[in-house]
Amino acid sequence: MEQVYRLTISCPDRVGIVAKVGGFLSSHGGWIVEANHYADPVSGWFFMRHCIKASSLPFGLEEFKEKFAPIAEEFQMDWQVSDSAQAKKIILMASKESHCLSDLLHRVHSKELFCDIPCVISNHDDLRSMVEWHGIPFFHVPMVRSDDADEHAANKQEHFDRVNSIIAEHKADSIVLARYMQILPAEICQQYAGQVINIHHSFLPSFAGAKPYHQAAERGVKLIGATCHYVTEELDAGPIIDQDVMRISHRDTIEDTVRLGKDVEKRVLSRGVRSHVEDRVLLHGNKTIVF
Amino acid sequence: MEQVYRLTISCPDRVGIVAKVGGFLSSHGGWIVEANHYADPVSGWFFMRHCIKASSLPFGLEEFKEKFAPIAEEFQMDWQVSDSAQAKKIILMASKESHCLSDLLHRVHSKELFCDIPCVISNHDDLRSMVEWHGIPFFHVPMVRSDDADEHAANKQEHFDRVNSIIAEHKADSIVLARYMQILPAEICQQYAGQVINIHHSFLPSFAGAKPYHQAAERGVKLIGATCHYVTEELDAGPIIDQDVMRISHRDTIEDTVRLGKDVEKRVLSRGVRSHVEDRVLLHGNKTIVF
Amino acid sequence: MEQVYRLTISCPDRVGIVAKVGGFLSSHGGWIVEANHYADPVSGWFFMRHCIKASSLPFGLEEFKEKFAPIAEEFQMDWQVSDSAQAKKIILMASKESHCLSDLLHRVHSKELFCDIPCVISNHDDLRSMVEWHGIPFFHVPMVRSDDADEHAANKQEHFDRVNSIIAEHKADSIVLARYMQILPAEICQQYAGQVINIHHSFLPSFAGAKPYHQAAERGVKLIGATCHYVTEELDAGPIIDQDVMRISHRDTIEDTVRLGKDVEKRVLSRGVRSHVEDRVLLHGNKTIVF
Amino acid sequence: MEQVYRLTISCPDRVGIVAKVGGFLSSHGGWIVEANHYADPVSGWFFMRHCIKASSLPFGLEEFKEKFAPIAEEFQMDWQVSDSAQAKKIILMASKESHCLSDLLHRVHSKELFCDIPCVISNHDDLRSMVEWHGIPFFHVPMVRSDDADEHAANKQEHFDRVNSIIAEHKADSIVLARYMQILPAEICQQYAGQVINIHHSFLPSFAGAKPYHQAAERGVKLIGATCHYVTEELDAGPIIDQDVMRISHRDTIEDTVRLGKDVEKRVLSRGVRSHVEDRVLLHGNKTIVF
Repeated sequence: MEQVYRLTISCPDRVGIVAKVGGFLSSHGGWIVEANHYADPVSGWFFMRHCIKASSLPFGLEEFKEKFAPIAEEFQMDWQVSDSAQAKKIILMASKESHCLSDLLHRVHSKELFCDIPCVISNHDDLRSMVEWHGIPFFHVPMVRSDDADEHAANKQEHFDRVNSIIAEHKADSIVLARYMQILPAEICQQYAGQVINIHHSFLPSFAGAKPYHQAAERGVKLIGATCHYVTEELDAGPIIDQDVMRISHRDTIEDTVRLGKDVEKRVLSRGVRSHVEDRVLLHGNKTIVF
Repeated sequence: MEQVYRLTISCPDRVGIVAKVGGFLSSHGGWIVEANHYADPVSGWFFMRHCIKASSLPFGLEEFKEKFAPIAEEFQMDWQVSDSAQAKKIILMASKESHCLSDLLHRVHSKELFCDIPCVISNHDDLRSMVEWHGIPFFHVPMVRSDDADEHAANKQEHFDRVNSIIAEHKADSIVLARYMQILPAEICQQYAGQVINIHHSFLPSFAGAKPYHQAAERGVKLIGATCHYVTEELDAGPIIDQDVMRISHRDTIEDTVRLGKDVEKRVLSRGVRSHVEDRVLLHGNKTIVF
Repeated sequence: MEQVYRLTISCPDRVGIVAKVGGFLSSHGGWIVEANHYADPVSGWFFMRHCIKASSLPFGLEEFKEKFAPIAEEFQMDWQVSDSAQAKKIILMASKESHCLSDLLHRVHSKELFCDIPCVISNHDDLRSMVEWHGIPFFHVPMVRSDDADEHAANKQEHFDRVNSIIAEHKADSIVLARYMQILPAEICQQYAGQVINIHHSFLPSFAGAKPYHQAAERGVKLIGATCHYVTEELDAGPIIDQDVMRISHRDTIEDTVRLGKDVEKRVLSRGVRSHVEDRVLLHGNKTIVF
Repeated sequence: MEQVYRLTISCPDRVGIVAKVGGFLSSHGGWIVEANHYADPVSGWFFMRHCIKASSLPFGLEEFKEKFAPIAEEFQMDWQVSDSAQAKKIILMASKESHCLSDLLHRVHSKELFCDIPCVISNHDDLRSMVEWHGIPFFHVPMVRSDDADEHAANKQEHFDRVNSIIAEHKADSIVLARYMQILPAEICQQYAGQVINIHHSFLPSFAGAKPYHQAAERGVKLIGATCHYVTEELDAGPIIDQDVMRISHRDTIEDTVRLGKDVEKRVLSRGVRSHVEDRVLLHGNKTIVF
């Protein structure tokens, strides 16, 4: 893959944005290899993503930022530019279920997905060996349940303090909850807004919360699904990045459904993570533009 | 298509049902051309559907029923047997939107779907010409809205009295709401339980009720869907026969979504109606077995 | 739908195309509501499609063309610009099967698909009434088979001479073969290159030629498909616009497969026609870019 | 999962098969938990699969076989009965690509797929560590290419002699070619007829042979696929067990297509292997019945 700079922009729509950005790039010899635009007719907002060959520009990322800043200001752009050669640091969090974690680790290991996994954090020790085989540090941070509400809250606090310090220590760009099964506290959701990706095992907004496959069986649906979304304070209600479904029938027991659903979860999560890693996801309120 | 008798059975599961039914059929020379079974491990209930060549049996439908009755009693069966050569009478109800109605009419007209449409009932007159071209009577039964609650209730009562009498007059086996857009009164739901099919333009249980595509756009989902279900008193909560979805993206406006959704609605409704017409749908509480 | 001008361009890729086109549009106040780009890394070719609000420009289509011509020349562009308010004239050709024709007619009739159908041509008279109900002229141009090879060739010539003159007379922009089932002569393929759309009832390149569903059954495939493509002289080998498939099983007879396939054919053909009508399809050798 | 006996039958269709088999099972108290039938109207052949609770029968597998043999003979059945508690022994063969192998190993490891992998054979040593982490023996059997035709043939012979002896030594029930990339010699195809499963990375019969993704790109198809089939002497022409596709667009390079295709390959192969392992696949000439 050739090294590119990825420029993503969102701003109020008006005449001349494309011309201005195109003119800026072309005046410096910038070769555009991929370009996407979207103008939302309802909100009047404009979204754009360009990939420019790094080798075609006479300067690096820092100078790009300096030179582009005046245009960004003129058009009140919310923008960023990143270097495709710099791997994003993504911490994976898991619990006992291995399918999503194993799938992501294999994709990174086989160079199908370009990112750096500085470590994996889990509240259970079950998946240590799988993670360590990949040469990735594994942190077991237990979450001790207690019948005493105060003690439980204290355990939870302790768990997330430790999680938080591991994240900070590894300077993670993003966090992927690969079936982590715990609800993140509001502080982490806020601190890493738009950077924490979750996979929920239903076609949201149907069957939010616990045991979605049991809820699905109860309702007698003919398709099951999975949803990859950014985590916000409200449970299972953040901006959706990707979704998919698969057909089931009356013959499928809950166990079958759970098993079949794993394939949908893996597929949707890995697609969502790829889009995130390649800076293809732009936030627009509680929705996403996925270029 | 060769003429067959369709025998559908549901009963408590136990050893010997298959043998007993198979023995009965074979003792009369009955040639089974299609057979489906399902034993629900949770409820301990058993479901079965057989298609038997009519020409292989020495008797007709009435004698079949008489001869089979003792077995049915022994196994406490909920059962029926129907003749594939006898077209079901299905009344279609529509409003202004033509896509589902046009699709069903074309399928019947081109002999792709075998049933008899004695008439179409609509609260608007828009689709009269389309229906009459097919040689099918069209009843325009207006539903006059009123700001006065009592008057509105009276209008509604009048509308459904008329609808009810048309249904009775035509001796319909089933009713298909092809985007009828009115909520059926409880009496009709009860009287025709398991015989009224609706198409809802969302992937239920997401977005029940009004304007599901608007709800979907609001939530930012990446797939839209449609659900074909039996109508019960509780709105959009009856047993689901079939569902399907299609992918949308941020580029699709509400208008695009409404248009794209029409294709899913048509597909799901026609599949559901076909299953119903061929006696492939067995009810199991609020769920369906679709053979 | 707001009136827009659709500008489509293909040319050798180089730095500055986006800037130049963007600059041209913005200098005249042109408001871009949709933009798509694609640079093919293998051939080094660049493709672009812009929709510009007609009301934002101070001139009409003719002046647009004049003013844009120098840029087009500079970049050696193959280009066109069209007005979304001007309906394309599309002649439909059919045979005896009604599903694709009925589907397209309904979409145009219900304003789901924006185009003008000046007439329908068929080698059989079966679908006349359906077409005429839509207020569209129907031309029955028989194609008389003969065992005598010379006579057959003469009949064929006569058939296509008549077809050709009807097309010319109605000044059609494009022709859609909605299961027309005859092979167009080379002259028509050449004369209307990139303007004749066919639906083939298989997932090409599998099962080109006659009786694709029978070929599929013979091979025991688990999915059947349909392909919408531009017609070229080589049978079923033209540039593919869209394809889709559906799952079948051993239970489906050839008759079932033919019936199920109709839904795929309708879906794929209508999607392909829509893309064509909206100038979303750009040709690239024997492939298509579909924006 | 409860232990069941799986009885699969194929025989000429006639009246009384269902009754006879059902009567046999019920006379011994056999509790049927799953039953599937299919009568092929073209060939007049009948196919059947029953799962019977092992605990409901008063005898084991050997006695079952003895007692059932007379019925099988009477109806000229091709039949077998297997014990769900006995894991099938499946040897995996791979080359350098890890996606299919990793996927299958994870499914077995996480108990999602019930079978025993006695060993993995590969012509390259790359995947040794991945396999050995799962505690499975890995045999590297090189296949040395030579420009000298005789030497090449000798090398090939040596390779397959070694492969053959490893298979024999491990008493494998079946062999799965998880992107093994070598053509099996006719002797192995014959010896293990109906027991060797391959994944081909195209939607067969399109793009048989080498480099199917390149062939697909050349033709400009809009969907790519994968096919899981039994291996026969004729390359990529054996009975198809399962197939699936995914949508691609002009934006996808060959590299993208290869990457996207991996997900389809994994999905289709694992589904096919599951069906095979659960004795759901019955052969019917060059086609399959998949219950």
